[in-house]
Amino acid sequence: MPDLIASVTVQDIRFPTSLEKDGSDAMNKAPDYSSPYVTVTTQAGLIGHGITFTVGRGNNIVASSFGPDIEVIFSDFAGFCEVTHHVKTRSDPLWKLLVDMEPEKLVSTIDFRYLEDALTKEEAIAILKSMQEGKAEREKEMKENGYPAYTTSCAWLGYSDEKIIRLCEEAMAEGFTRFKMKVGSDLQDDKRRAQILRQTMKPEHLLMVDANQKWEVQEAIDWMRELVHFNITWIEEPTSPDDVLGHAEISKALKPLGIGVATGEQCQNRVMFKQFLKSGAMQFCQIDSCRLGGVNENLAVILMAKKYGVPVCPHGGGVGLCEYIQHLSLFDYIAVSGSLENSCSDVVLHLYSHYKQIIFFSSFNGYSQVPGYSIDMKSTSLEEFEWPTGKERQDLFQKGIYKPDNEAIGPLWYLYN
Amino acid sequence: MPDLIASVTVQDIRFPTSLEKDGSDAMNKAPDYSSPYVTVTTQAGLIGHGITFTVGRGNNIVASSFGPDIEVIFSDFAGFCEVTHHVKTRSDPLWKLLVDMEPEKLVSTIDFRYLEDALTKEEAIAILKSMQEGKAEREKEMKENGYPAYTTSCAWLGYSDEKIIRLCEEAMAEGFTRFKMKVGSDLQDDKRRAQILRQTMKPEHLLMVDANQKWEVQEAIDWMRELVHFNITWIEEPTSPDDVLGHAEISKALKPLGIGVATGEQCQNRVMFKQFLKSGAMQFCQIDSCRLGGVNENLAVILMAKKYGVPVCPHGGGVGLCEYIQHLSLFDYIAVSGSLENSCSDVVLHLYSHYKQIIFFSSFNGYSQVPGYSIDMKSTSLEEFEWPTGKERQDLFQKGIYKPDNEAIGPLWYLYN
Repeated sequence: MPDLIASVTVQDIRFPTSLEKDGSDAMNKAPDYSSPYVTVTTQAGLIGHGITFTVGRGNNIVASSFGPDIEVIFSDFAGFCEVTHHVKTRSDPLWKLLVDMEPEKLVSTIDFRYLEDALTKEEAIAILKSMQEGKAEREKEMKENGYPAYTTSCAWLGYSDEKIIRLCEEAMAEGFTRFKMKVGSDLQDDKRRAQILRQTMKPEHLLMVDANQKWEVQEAIDWMRELVHFNITWIEEPTSPDDVLGHAEISKALKPLGIGVATGEQCQNRVMFKQFLKSGAMQFCQIDSCRLGGVNENLAVILMAKKYGVPVCPHGGGVGLCEYIQHLSLFDYIAVSGSLENSCSDVVLHLYSHYKQIIFFSSFNGYSQVPGYSIDMKSTSLEEFEWPTGKERQDLFQKGIYKPDNEAIGPLWYLYN
Repeated sequence: MPDLIASVTVQDIRFPTSLEKDGSDAMNKAPDYSSPYVTVTTQAGLIGHGITFTVGRGNNIVASSFGPDIEVIFSDFAGFCEVTHHVKTRSDPLWKLLVDMEPEKLVSTIDFRYLEDALTKEEAIAILKSMQEGKAEREKEMKENGYPAYTTSCAWLGYSDEKIIRLCEEAMAEGFTRFKMKVGSDLQDDKRRAQILRQTMKPEHLLMVDANQKWEVQEAIDWMRELVHFNITWIEEPTSPDDVLGHAEISKALKPLGIGVATGEQCQNRVMFKQFLKSGAMQFCQIDSCRLGGVNENLAVILMAKKYGVPVCPHGGGVGLCEYIQHLSLFDYIAVSGSLENSCSDVVLHLYSHYKQIIFFSSFNGYSQVPGYSIDMKSTSLEEFEWPTGKERQDLFQKGIYKPDNEAIGPLWYLYN
């Protein structure tokens, strides 16, 4: 007897991160990290959650678009329940479920449409089979050491110099050896801030920079030439995330300087990743757990990255993303890439406390041992931050910092200042 | 004293086109051509309209996303009102406003961000200046002859052979000499239908085909080789609309066969067009008036197409699109390209009667002489087709053909058959 879905609800959850400029960058001056939060309950009492990530404005529109998906679930109860049932009986975290899946079974979950000129089903199976050896050792290694992570949390664009130094020192004390700095608004300011970070970090530590799509193609090349003596590992999102050919040109120009190009967090599908990977336009593949069409599409990209020899460094700068990507990184290392060279995942610490599973351990991303995809939020956080009824929200409305009657407008301090 | 906005309303308008399979293709088996319909009214009584185009499901989500834009308008009344005021005082149709604008003024309306490696502001001004000569003659020519159009209306994928022949003959009687056929579901069926069309058309008439993104890259090349003796002018959307490199590969393979690649209706921004144009991935540039960010972004693409020598053939297969694109095509010919070689616009006749300005004259797209962008709908159409309250809709609900309580689900005959 199948266990049918009893209810599906969507909540509009928004954190007022813009007040402290957490998450601020060259393109998003006042993001309120937010997510529609979906709860699916079955008649037998199974509960599942899912989110996506937005910067606040329009979170309601994304939440409203869950409608059609729910209808699809309703129209195929059996198929959907098989999935939930499967996970339940396995009692595994998602990464473990993926790692242990037979190559043929795993590949059957991937949509290979439009990928034939880059990766066939047969090639994908061959990759997975070739990596069976050593899986147990790599799993053990991950359990002991964790998956390497870098931090963006100490150098958002809006932070003061004092705050950058303090946060960088704190991160080093927690074991971090890789740091990312936001750039792209002012070259002299970027140089000053890079200098501060390089003086605070140890010489062997890695420094990455992120322009959040700020530049033209040639401008990106010229700007990065100016930063070259800070020993930059990668420049992230130098220009429009849709510009494959532009990224290829930037990659070619920066290669002799030892700077790679990282991008992917705004790549909307596997076809864009296919082009970036095939044309040498990305040297670091930054998959995003929410931008792509779920886990399945991320599997396709992870396998393509392996074929083209590009390390996978998932994007975690958001809310809930780090919780998700631990699973993708663990799967990538244990079952696909087998290498940690140049691989690391993004860790952003400022909102993790809203989730039930605390997954961060100093300088590496987590290693969940609980069934599922680690996205359950604490009920207290839901109560406080649901828009527009949450307690914290009501407080901000009363103080006049946010406006309750139009959810699209965002924080007033930004719009009217 | 500026004329302030008094109200902004959005209506969810859906036409049950799926019942007759109008608009059916290899990817959309049951589209209900639909549009959010925006009405802006000022205190002085000026009224403006705008739409975008969807295939029905999710039209409500698109309608709901107008929220933030309205806030932007509200936050800059002066700037917005200057625009409306300008149009009003000119009393010109949009195409005429654009054609008569000083090159510097016109170019100032374009966002050149991310385009610097393809087209600079200075190059755009130079293009417009170089085409000033002959503008009056071309405008006169358009008034007399109209802008050439082709028809897709006679060969949707779901039509019977008899219907194709009848509609093709009717179109020829109306003066059409260019026809487009949907392909991609079954090769033998495509051959049979192409044969029927070629037998009905005159030898000198042009035949284009449209695969609506159905194929892999190599599959597209192989399939088109099979259709080569039907003398095909272009293959439209052979694969994923995001696959610039794939389209470039297909273009290269089909060039020796005399078949061009047409795409663009699903290109979401000028950066994608930049890549398609620069890399030789499109031989026909199919801008879409609603997919891109308004008129301004279309101007950028029209100017880039001129620089790369690619004819502009706007996409009109939808509701309201033909009404819009007449303006873009007229501007392109009169002020930018100065050539009709290989240029033609898409004309889809099945919904034009809902608009106040009838713009179709047999085999060419219209020549509006009324102020604005030709998108005012008849009040009777709004009353009949507004979802879910319209009269025609209520009738379809009562007959059990559509389900009123979930606007996302679409026609029942499709979902449950």
